[in-house]
Formats: sequence, structure tokens, C-alpha cells
Amino acid sequence: MYHDLHFAFNLPMHRGSHLVDDADLRKKGVTRIYDILFAYEDVLMETDRRLRKILVRPEFQKEMGTREFYHHLGRVMNEYEEKNNLGEVSILAAAYRHGIPVFTSSPGDSTIGMNVAGLELLAEAAGLKDLFKLKINPSKDVNDSTAIILNAKRYEHGKTAVILIGGGSPKNFMLQTEPQIQEVLMIPEVGQDYDINVTDARPDTGGLSGAPPSEAASWGKIDPTKLEETVTAYLDVTVAFPLMVAYVRQTTRPKKQKRLYHRGQELHEKLMQSYLENNREVEQLKNLIKKLSAKPTGKEE
Amino acid sequence: MYHDLHFAFNLPMHRGSHLVDDADLRKKGVTRIYDILFAYEDVLMETDRRLRKILVRPEFQKEMGTREFYHHLGRVMNEYEEKNNLGEVSILAAAYRHGIPVFTSSPGDSTIGMNVAGLELLAEAAGLKDLFKLKINPSKDVNDSTAIILNAKRYEHGKTAVILIGGGSPKNFMLQTEPQIQEVLMIPEVGQDYDINVTDARPDTGGLSGAPPSEAASWGKIDPTKLEETVTAYLDVTVAFPLMVAYVRQTTRPKKQKRLYHRGQELHEKLMQSYLENNREVEQLKNLIKKLSAKPTGKEE
Amino acid sequence: MYHDLHFAFNLPMHRGSHLVDDADLRKKGVTRIYDILFAYEDVLMETDRRLRKILVRPEFQKEMGTREFYHHLGRVMNEYEEKNNLGEVSILAAAYRHGIPVFTSSPGDSTIGMNVAGLELLAEAAGLKDLFKLKINPSKDVNDSTAIILNAKRYEHGKTAVILIGGGSPKNFMLQTEPQIQEVLMIPEVGQDYDINVTDARPDTGGLSGAPPSEAASWGKIDPTKLEETVTAYLDVTVAFPLMVAYVRQTTRPKKQKRLYHRGQELHEKLMQSYLENNREVEQLKNLIKKLSAKPTGKEE
Amino acid sequence: MYHDLHFAFNLPMHRGSHLVDDADLRKKGVTRIYDILFAYEDVLMETDRRLRKILVRPEFQKEMGTREFYHHLGRVMNEYEEKNNLGEVSILAAAYRHGIPVFTSSPGDSTIGMNVAGLELLAEAAGLKDLFKLKINPSKDVNDSTAIILNAKRYEHGKTAVILIGGGSPKNFMLQTEPQIQEVLMIPEVGQDYDINVTDARPDTGGLSGAPPSEAASWGKIDPTKLEETVTAYLDVTVAFPLMVAYVRQTTRPKKQKRLYHRGQELHEKLMQSYLENNREVEQLKNLIKKLSAKPTGKEE
Repeated sequence: MYHDLHFAFNLPMHRGSHLVDDADLRKKGVTRIYDILFAYEDVLMETDRRLRKILVRPEFQKEMGTREFYHHLGRVMNEYEEKNNLGEVSILAAAYRHGIPVFTSSPGDSTIGMNVAGLELLAEAAGLKDLFKLKINPSKDVNDSTAIILNAKRYEHGKTAVILIGGGSPKNFMLQTEPQIQEVLMIPEVGQDYDINVTDARPDTGGLSGAPPSEAASWGKIDPTKLEETVTAYLDVTVAFPLMVAYVRQTTRPKKQKRLYHRGQELHEKLMQSYLENNREVEQLKNLIKKLSAKPTGKEE
Repeated sequence: MYHDLHFAFNLPMHRGSHLVDDADLRKKGVTRIYDILFAYEDVLMETDRRLRKILVRPEFQKEMGTREFYHHLGRVMNEYEEKNNLGEVSILAAAYRHGIPVFTSSPGDSTIGMNVAGLELLAEAAGLKDLFKLKINPSKDVNDSTAIILNAKRYEHGKTAVILIGGGSPKNFMLQTEPQIQEVLMIPEVGQDYDINVTDARPDTGGLSGAPPSEAASWGKIDPTKLEETVTAYLDVTVAFPLMVAYVRQTTRPKKQKRLYHRGQELHEKLMQSYLENNREVEQLKNLIKKLSAKPTGKEE
Repeated sequence: MYHDLHFAFNLPMHRGSHLVDDADLRKKGVTRIYDILFAYEDVLMETDRRLRKILVRPEFQKEMGTREFYHHLGRVMNEYEEKNNLGEVSILAAAYRHGIPVFTSSPGDSTIGMNVAGLELLAEAAGLKDLFKLKINPSKDVNDSTAIILNAKRYEHGKTAVILIGGGSPKNFMLQTEPQIQEVLMIPEVGQDYDINVTDARPDTGGLSGAPPSEAASWGKIDPTKLEETVTAYLDVTVAFPLMVAYVRQTTRPKKQKRLYHRGQELHEKLMQSYLENNREVEQLKNLIKKLSAKPTGKEE
Repeated sequence: MYHDLHFAFNLPMHRGSHLVDDADLRKKGVTRIYDILFAYEDVLMETDRRLRKILVRPEFQKEMGTREFYHHLGRVMNEYEEKNNLGEVSILAAAYRHGIPVFTSSPGDSTIGMNVAGLELLAEAAGLKDLFKLKINPSKDVNDSTAIILNAKRYEHGKTAVILIGGGSPKNFMLQTEPQIQEVLMIPEVGQDYDINVTDARPDTGGLSGAPPSEAASWGKIDPTKLEETVTAYLDVTVAFPLMVAYVRQTTRPKKQKRLYHRGQELHEKLMQSYLENNREVEQLKNLIKKLSAKPTGKEE
């Protein structure tokens, strides 16, 4: 999501080639992402400078998940888009406008996470720890993403689908919502109804990135009775995604937006309620937590 | 790291085949990771039950990075290993014994993160929020991993190397330590000295997983003057890693352990000190943070 | 091209799955090509039986290249298509009707080549060697494919393009036409004008299948001044080819067919003429060949 | 096999990089195979010049398969190796010395095939067709490779194995020996006993290069009862092959050489004999061939 900011800030990115001399690029102050080239000082460092000023705004001073963090950031990007008269160039701004929740499973990994960490370091070094209150809590994202699936299936009796582009940590993060419901929260459920994977990773490497929908079914991530409807395409996303979008736009009518971001609190409460109603360990775990009151908390060795 | 727990707990994993009927596996209560099979109830659910009881121990009741979190978990796994007379089977236990810091860039993604989130949900639902204090703060990991590199190069005048197996979020998390030093903290540095990548992802997909060391050099992640010494092997890690380990064991003598985990506080202070000495924005950012004291903090819409 | 015959013969092929038990398939007499299933006896063996009867027809009793061989086979497939009222199902039949030359670089590899070899073996075993005269001469194909390129560029002053789907031996066979002109026949030329590769093989394996157009330029296969116009797509052909065909059909008008098959003799004579005019070794090689008349021919040890 | 000649001729090849400017290489007369660089004029053209003089030697003036062709070429390479005091540098020379048959499935594809075709063109153009008698007959290779497998299993009651490095046409050529025995010649057999594939092609592309041993079993290429002993490694051959060779050398003693090249005639006769004894169509096909005597042979349209 960091690179989305360059677009909203209207900082120039250039299409070049991946066949370049990178030692030379570094000397000339040019940074490369495959075949995209941009200035280290005027784009990368400038984006960081602007980002840091945004991160010390009051609305960021709290503990939150990335769902809420990206919403606040999306609001600022939306302002930049409008102010710069850019049309629609930022994904975060679009998600903000349409109330679409955006999550990351690895909040510390990216220049956004680096700058959050940098400000926390400064606040500590400068004795201002109590004023800079931004903390990303990954547990909120685990529960908030899970609440969306639970609500769709258990409360609205609908169907759910995951569209997975690429693999790695984001893939599992999306797929673990069902095991979170069934295995950890112990709420009876049967897995996602549809699963579209676009990947170039193969199953034989043994990794998650290439794991096909059938493997996910053995975990309860995907409804095993619907395996025949799952699809895996070994394709570059730059080919697959335009084809999928073009198909959807040609064959379906616009639907009413769900604006799920704005239903965060409602979904969270439903998740807690289902948990309390179904979890077989609630009493045991409550007792264990209560015992903590008597004990001193942990210290790092 | 979640699957490391099965070994320390002495719960049985079986080598099978990836050519199996996953709907049938699900019916029979068997879970699959490529060609590894294990029982859903007696392994997966049992691991979770034990894990939850560990996570409510006193030493886990604090805000921490995964560096510290895995250290506490490693101590418990070490106890299980010893108690069960298992020999060396757990990576976390070994890291604990040798004082090796372990990080993850995506703390919410994995069954460990799911159970942390589940306990946080329960504590809130049961009105026990103040007692269950475990929170993972990714910013700590960003700064703690960065502090290791800074210390090695700036304070101990040594060399640094990254060995990257696979890609995705962990790859960038390791590589971003240098940009964190140079770009965010603004401490003069020139990038890692050695970079070994073992991957099956190719550069032409444009993603980070396949990005070669040269692309990293254009970001200052790798010292561009040392690009000729970098190595990328398109190999399955199950072939590459044993070859590398065998080579190292045959050609080098044991070295004194660095036990970097136990130097966490020292490295953290060096990082803060270098930051304050070098960062050109310290005063500006301090002033921005100070202004926060007058304002109300953010509220979710 | 062997599997093209099943379609013209109207023998049933079934779409199945690649996740099947092949030992079981073999027991049940089913043969598999990835996810295509067909009967061993009624499809595979039946195709062979019909093919053998075709191969002993008089028009096949001669030495020829695969260009001519496939033309005769295409005529028979065209008859089957018409007789069975099948519409257009056979590639060889379509090539026959439109006068398009079809080549293979590996005539012995495929069930067609196996049956040609089987008949040659029978003819020898039965003392009928003089009657069964079908011999595939690969040199004819090398020269006939080269003659097409030479004619297009040198005699018709046009441009040439290669569309390469996949890699292996067919890829080099198409690309070697320019080196055959420049290096072996010593006729001045500069390489193909356009080169479209659709492949999933990567350059880093070092093999030809993944070699990009630029490598071909260093051989004179591709005009090096036109490298910027070359395209390599790492894509499954089942995605790439329909997109390419749809684009061509939507953006161009039908052209007059070249019917190059029927110009075989004319192109062959132009190739000989250019060779005699340009080759610097003609006299030397003629003298070496003339000396052969005095010597006994080779014997296998 | 063409590039094997450079080594025996002692013409210099250089290790370079694949990250070079190929238009520039072409201008400077340098040819590239991935990261190997060599001179166009002094290596490529010089190899061709020497090769053409070899191909007009008397022992090459006959119709043969590549099995015999490479044997004659190997004898010449062996002379070069000895004369130039090079040690063992040529694969063809080594195969010659040890009586190992070498086959190619695509004789026209390669600079060797190009030069054979060039000489045939010259002989025709110069009216010397009767003197230059070298013709590659792929049917001989199909039958000669098949005869090796048949002899090992049916006459010597041994076991057979295929070691397949890479895919494409050579892969099928080796594997089709069993279908040639069972399907075309109709001799009862059950497929190869061992099958080791080293490849980076995946089954999901649907192509032969990535087809696993199980798919081969459905064709009778591999004995389906031995599927569990087959191995596929998705590995670069430069890693896999040295490991395999080192393992074999460390764990086995030298065996008596089979010198199969020199048993060509014996194996061929056994193949004919088994064919006549088992084939159910012998009489029918003999009759069809006999009828050819009355008819004129084919003419190209």
C-alpha cells in the first residue's frame, strides 16, 4: 500500500526496463521495482516525509488494526486526489470512499510500517512516549476479517468467496478466517463457498503459495463439498485480472455496495456473541485469565 | 513457527502423498500440508488447546515484539523437549537455548496469531481486558531487527549477510533493515555485504519474491559495490539448504555464539542514539508530536 | 500431429482430471494426456491400425520431408472429415485445404514416426524392402523451411515473423532458418523482423526453451536492430493464443492466402540459385564431393 | 551435439553473463548461449567449415540413423582430442571409445543437421546427387532404440531404466520405446522398471515436458506396478546431475561395459524376429505392401 501513496501525492513513476545496471541506478539516485523507475530523493524520501507528517495527526493516535489505519490513511489520500485534481489514482482513496475494509497481515513490513516504527523510536528517545499513541494490533485484524465471514454466513445466510492473487502471508491471512471461526472460536461452520487463486507458484514446492484449494479444504478453509467449483489459474495477474474484471463488467449489473467498513462494530459484536455461545473453553480460559490478577507480569530476560 | 510446536509437544505428523482426496481427508479428520498428514483433533486442536494455556501465563502479559514473544515460547518448548526426552526437535527451543532472536513479519497470520486474537476477544467479551495484556507490536520488531544490522556495521565495524529462503513478506522484512537505517532513521550506511537468495520465483513476474539482489541494490538494501558477490539460486530449499549446511560444516570451525537475543536492550539504545545524532527531522517531528498533547485522539468512524 | 488424427477419425477423447490413479487407468485400458482421457484399444490402437493402412498407399512410397508427408496425410484427413460430416476438426486437413506447409523437426518421435518405423521393419523382415519406399529425409525440411524465409525477404522484399509457442526442438527449428541462410549457405541476410514467444520456460535455466529473443539476435536469428519490437510472454498458451487470435480477427481484414505449399519447387530453386551465387565454398566442396566417386562408401563397424 | 565439436576442435568458449547487450554482441561478432560467449567467425563458422569437410568423408556416404552417424563423428572427435592432447573433453569421443550409442530425435534441428542439408542442396545444385549419399533415416533410430529395451527385457531378462534430463522431444523419444514394442510391434511387455526425471516443467501446463511418470504409466511406457519407485525432481540439472553422479561413484563399483553400439546388428535381428512372432497384422500388412508393386509411386502436387 506504500507505493499507492506516490500516486495520490502525484509523484512521478516511470516505466523503464529491468535490464539496467543497478549499481549505476543507485549512483544516480534512481530506485527500481522490476521495470518501474523513480527518484530516490524526490519520490521515495518525499513520500516518507509527507507520510510522517500524516502519521502524527490526532486521528492516528490510538491502538488499531490495519483495517482502521488504512481507512484514516485513505481519507488523507482522498483529499490529495481531490486537491491535485487527479481523478481516481489511489486504491486507498477508493476503498475509503466506498467503505471497503483493507487489511495487511504484515504491518511492520513496508515503508509505512518502517515509518510508524521510526516515530515510535523517536517518541521514546525524546521522552514523548505518552503522546505518540499509534500502535498496530494484529489481533484486531485477525478478528475483524473473521467477523466479515461469520456475518455473511451465519447471520446473513449468504455465501462467501475468496479471490487470491499471489501467495505468501496475505493468502493464508484471508484463508485462516474459517479456521479462526471453527478451530479457535469453535463456532460450527463449513468453509468458504468459492475460491479463485491466481498464482505462479506450484504445489510441488510444498509451500502455501502454491497450495491448491483442495489442500485448503483439508483444513476447513474451503467447503470440501464444493471443491469442484474451485479454480486455480497459473497466470500472471496482469493477464488474469483484466480478463476477470472485463468479464464481470460485461456480464453483471452494478450491485448495492455493502460498505462493510462502517459495520465494523456490529460485526465485532456478533463475533463475540457467537464465540460466547459456542466456545467450549470459555469458562476454563476465563478462570485462567482471572488468576493473572494476582501475579506480576512478564519481564524480558 | 506454529507447526514447530507439534514437534516439541510430541504430537505425531505423518509423511504421506499430495495425491489424495481432500474431501475424504476432511471427512476422516485428517489435515494436509502438501505431503504431510496429521489428525485434526489430536494434533491440530490439541496443539491449540495447549498453546492457549501457555499464552495466559504471566510472562506473556505485556506488549512485545515477536522477538520477545518467540523467546518466551521457546523457553516453554525447551521444557517440553526436555520433559519428553525428545532430543533436539524444536526450532524455537534451539533458538531459546542459543539466544538467537526469531522474528515474524506477519504476527497475525498463523494459528499462533489466531489464538492470541481469540484470547483477546474472549478477554473483551468477558470483561477481563485489563488482565489479558498480551499485545504484539510490530514496530518493536522493525526496530529490533534494524538494531542488529546497525550494531554489526556501525558499532562493531563488521560485515552483514542475509540468507533468504523463499520470498514474500519475510524477504522484504529482512531486507528493509538497511532502508530503515538509511531512509527512515537517516543514518549513513551502504547496504548488506552478502546476500544469498534461494527461491523458485522469477524476476519477470515483477514481484518481490523473485526480485534479484541487483534490484535490492537500487534501494540501498544491498551494497551496490558488492553486487558481483551476491548469489541467487533457483532451487528448492530442501536441496539447497542441506548442501549449504554441509559445506559450512565441512569447511569452517565452530564460532563463539553471539547470543544477540540477550543484547536486545543494548542494541536498542545504540539505535536510538544513532537516530538522534543523525536524523535531520528530529526537532520538527518532536514539535509535531508535542502538539498532540492539546488534541483529542482519533475515533473510528 | 498424431493426436490430430483422432479428431478426423471421429474417435472419442474425454476431458477428465489429472488427479487420477494411473495404475488403475492402465488396468482399465484408459490412456491419459494430462486431463484428457481416451481408450487404449478403441482410440489409440484403432488410430494406429488406420494409420498403417494409410501409410502403405502409393502416394507415400517415396523419400520426402515432413512438409510433403503431412500434406498427403492432410488430404486423407480431409476426406475423413468430409465423409464423417464433422466440420473443421483436424489441423492437418485445414492445412491441406489452405496449402499451408506443416513441418516437424523430430519425425521419428511420435506415434506417426513409430508406425513408419514399424512398417520399414516389417518390409525388411518380409523381404519387401524395395516395395515400401517411404523415408523421411530431415534435410529436405531444413532446406524447405529455409527457402520460405529466403523467398520472403530476398525475392519478395517482405518482412518475416516467427510465432513460437513453447520451446524445445520446434523452437530452434523455426529460428535456425536465418542461420541456415547466413552461416551455412552464406547468403547475406539480417534475421527475422518479428518474434513472438509464448513460453513458461525461463532464461535462467540456460536452455533454449527459455532463451529470449535477444539471445537469438546474437546468432543472427533475429534482426538485432529490431530487438525492441520483440515480445516474450510467460503465459500458458491456452490463455495467450485465444487472446492473440481474437485480437487479430477484430483488428485486421482477411488477406489473400499465400498457399506456400504449392510453391515448394519454385522456392527450392530460388534457394539453390542464391546458394550458388553467394557461397564462398562451392568450388571447394564440389571438388571434395567429386573425389568420393573413387572411394568405397562407409560401413558400420 | 554440435557444441560438443567446439571442445574437440579446441576452439575457445568463454563464461560471461546473460546480462549483456545482444545487439552490441552481434556487432562485435560474438554469439551467446545464456552466459557462454564465443566468436561467430573463429568458433561458429570455423566449426562449420571443419564439419563440412568431415561430412564428405567416405564413411558418411550412406543412409543411416543418428546412432551410426554420431559413432562416425565420435571417431573423428576422438582423433582431434588425441592429436590436440586435450584429455577427455568431447562427449561424442567418449561415447565412441566406450561403444555407447547416441541418438537424437530431431536430426534436422541443429547446426549439424543444417550442414548435412546444406551439402545435400549443393550436391543437387551441382549435379552431384549420386555422389553425396549421406541421408539420416529417423526410422532406423526408432527401431534401434527400441531394440535395446527389447533385448534387455525379453532376451536378457534384465531391468531397464530411463534417466530423463529436461523434456521436449528427447523425453518422448526415450519413453516411446515401450509403446513401440507393445503398441506398434505388438510384442507383450510391461514398461520400464525405473524412471528418473529431472525437469523444471510442471504437469499443469499439460505438456509432455512436465508429465510425471504416472502419466507415462497410463501409456505403458512405465510399468504401472512400479510407480512408487519413480522419482521426479524439479531441479536444475546442474545441481541434480553432479549429486547423482557423486552418489553413484561413491556407492557402486565399476561395471563391465555393455558396448551396445557394437551389438547393433544382433539387437536389430532380435527385434525383427520378435515382431514376426508376435505381430497380429503381419500377413495383412505384407499383402498391402505387395500390392504396391503394381502401382506408380507418389508425386508431390
